[in-house]
Amino acid sequence: MQVYLDNGAGKPVDPRVIEEMNRINSEVYGNPASFHSKGFDALKIIKESRAKVAAYINAEPDEIFFTSGATEANNLALIGGANRNKKRGTKIIISEVEHISIINIVKSLTRQGFSMEMCPVDQYGVVKLDELEKLVDDETLLVSIMTANGEIGTIQPIKEATEIAHKHEALFHTDATAAMGQLKLDMKELGVDMLTLSSNDLYGPKGVGALYVRKGVRVSPTMIGGGQEQGLRSGTENTAGIVGMAKAAEIASMELDEESKRLSMLRDMLIEKLLGAIPESYLNGHPSKRLPNNANIRYSFIEGEALIMSLDDEGIQVSSGSACAAKTLEPSHTLLACGLKHEEAHGSLVFTLGKNNNSEHVEYVVEKLPGIVKRLRAMSPLTPKELR
Amino acid sequence: MQVYLDNGAGKPVDPRVIEEMNRINSEVYGNPASFHSKGFDALKIIKESRAKVAAYINAEPDEIFFTSGATEANNLALIGGANRNKKRGTKIIISEVEHISIINIVKSLTRQGFSMEMCPVDQYGVVKLDELEKLVDDETLLVSIMTANGEIGTIQPIKEATEIAHKHEALFHTDATAAMGQLKLDMKELGVDMLTLSSNDLYGPKGVGALYVRKGVRVSPTMIGGGQEQGLRSGTENTAGIVGMAKAAEIASMELDEESKRLSMLRDMLIEKLLGAIPESYLNGHPSKRLPNNANIRYSFIEGEALIMSLDDEGIQVSSGSACAAKTLEPSHTLLACGLKHEEAHGSLVFTLGKNNNSEHVEYVVEKLPGIVKRLRAMSPLTPKELR
Repeated sequence: MQVYLDNGAGKPVDPRVIEEMNRINSEVYGNPASFHSKGFDALKIIKESRAKVAAYINAEPDEIFFTSGATEANNLALIGGANRNKKRGTKIIISEVEHISIINIVKSLTRQGFSMEMCPVDQYGVVKLDELEKLVDDETLLVSIMTANGEIGTIQPIKEATEIAHKHEALFHTDATAAMGQLKLDMKELGVDMLTLSSNDLYGPKGVGALYVRKGVRVSPTMIGGGQEQGLRSGTENTAGIVGMAKAAEIASMELDEESKRLSMLRDMLIEKLLGAIPESYLNGHPSKRLPNNANIRYSFIEGEALIMSLDDEGIQVSSGSACAAKTLEPSHTLLACGLKHEEAHGSLVFTLGKNNNSEHVEYVVEKLPGIVKRLRAMSPLTPKELR
Repeated sequence: MQVYLDNGAGKPVDPRVIEEMNRINSEVYGNPASFHSKGFDALKIIKESRAKVAAYINAEPDEIFFTSGATEANNLALIGGANRNKKRGTKIIISEVEHISIINIVKSLTRQGFSMEMCPVDQYGVVKLDELEKLVDDETLLVSIMTANGEIGTIQPIKEATEIAHKHEALFHTDATAAMGQLKLDMKELGVDMLTLSSNDLYGPKGVGALYVRKGVRVSPTMIGGGQEQGLRSGTENTAGIVGMAKAAEIASMELDEESKRLSMLRDMLIEKLLGAIPESYLNGHPSKRLPNNANIRYSFIEGEALIMSLDDEGIQVSSGSACAAKTLEPSHTLLACGLKHEEAHGSLVFTLGKNNNSEHVEYVVEKLPGIVKRLRAMSPLTPKELR
């Protein structure tokens, strides 16, 4: 059996999205800047797509700026936002559990006169709002806290954090990549100034994403050229990608409620059965405020990498943390921020469910994993006798 | 009849490319950074794709850095190249006929302590090498001259220009966007330090491109994040886009010779017949050193926009210049650099042929355009009596 449980790292594109993109790639290939019918066709469908993506988060179409993905949207929000709003101050605050792209972007900004502060999280990875209150001051330019953490699944109190930032006239950005297609995102209600959207996390194509920028918020472009996207993001529009992302957002809008419920049930089933079947296993992240598709469980006395390889041999794909940080072999900074020890962080497995998963898949994992854990523990000199 | 002759602004994706991409989007969706079979599959196909793109320009695979398109590759080359090599000097030299993305990028660099110099061109738009000789000095950091101009079709003496830059240890970059799929590009022979590649110009997908960076040349990243592409370009790899671009490059390698010959014949037929059929019409750009697919012809006493709309009514799509600058309504800076007057520049039409065009299309344009020109001239008070 093939059981892909690494949907947080990469998702198949929805067949309905592929169909739309194929039509664009073969028929709507004009440049939207061109003054003829083929250009107008492209311009029109991009306009419609922008409206669809806007509707997905209850924003206005001209608040959506298409990019090449979530990373570029994060760059635009943080670098473009910081450069344009220097007058507000130089302090940038992020949470300790941000995605590596956010951390690295802000680190790069510290070499240009900005300063970085990290807001701590509790044992579940939830940002401590009282600590945030203490950190945000009138020198604060920007606060960036992810909507939800794709690794431990924890959902952040974005509305409350935004209010804290706004009290001091700091901008608030949230990276919603991991939350895409799982949580309802309402820009009128959340009140954030900028929000990063990912397409592939909605079962849309890779290589496209968007940044929501609330009307009135000023951002400098990070990609220079022909002045597309209201001058904020140059480069010929990736029409098929944009249309694909919009189709994915449209599908997600319709299916979100039901799919989130279904995934939550599968997730709870997976967590409950695995914790029951394997001794010395613990859930990472928040027990209830977590993404419907995420289960992150740690197993004492073993290395995540060994577990991943053994599961892969059985046709099950999971992750040991954020794929984007996989190459470093460092323990997850997210788990360390939650107070875990290095060895605990190393023994963690991330299961991210998706559209194509069902209860048979969960059963299959529950059937295979306990034996693998037992075998690997038996090989480790650290394992106490009673677990061998 | 539908005759699309604006292939320089946007191209349909080759059906063979679409097929490859569909397979990736539905089957090879793992994150190449993941430590399991689905990740390895993605990693492997990206590696193969990198080799294919490298082979297309006779480069090494690790000299290819995938981006979200030509604009991003230009940003990486110029901003990343300038920031990383400040020690070489602060002067950046570009030609007067560069694409607006290059001009705007270098302009943005002038606000950061770099200086911009424009190298003039002759009446055909060819960079004056003697002027370049005078401009390049030991303070010169970077020279950027396009391989060929997509608007007037003129091919630049890149090898000679590179030699001039290298005499003073300046870096040399060339934007090969318009040349893609039409000219043989051999990195071992050309000697350039960086070259911008576009995917859609090869009938690959939009939203992907690449920068060739010669081994040993240092560039700073312009997109920060997870450190993909050897740390030079962060963001989850757009696997389907990369594979699509590689497939397009592979097809282009096989078909380039024959297709260039075929397009050159169509182009010459179009130019000859149009110049013969319409009085007071003149070819812009170089008569022989020009892209196989490009014909740029100016018609006295009329506006390009009116011509474009009238042709569009007949099912023919052409351009009045670079699509990326279409919104400005300014006369083409490229044509002005060639010494044309404003009104001459405004009366120019750009025909860019493509794979799907044939001699019937050329005949159709030759059948329709003279009447349109006559009708529009009759409406203009500037038209002399004998042309009415």
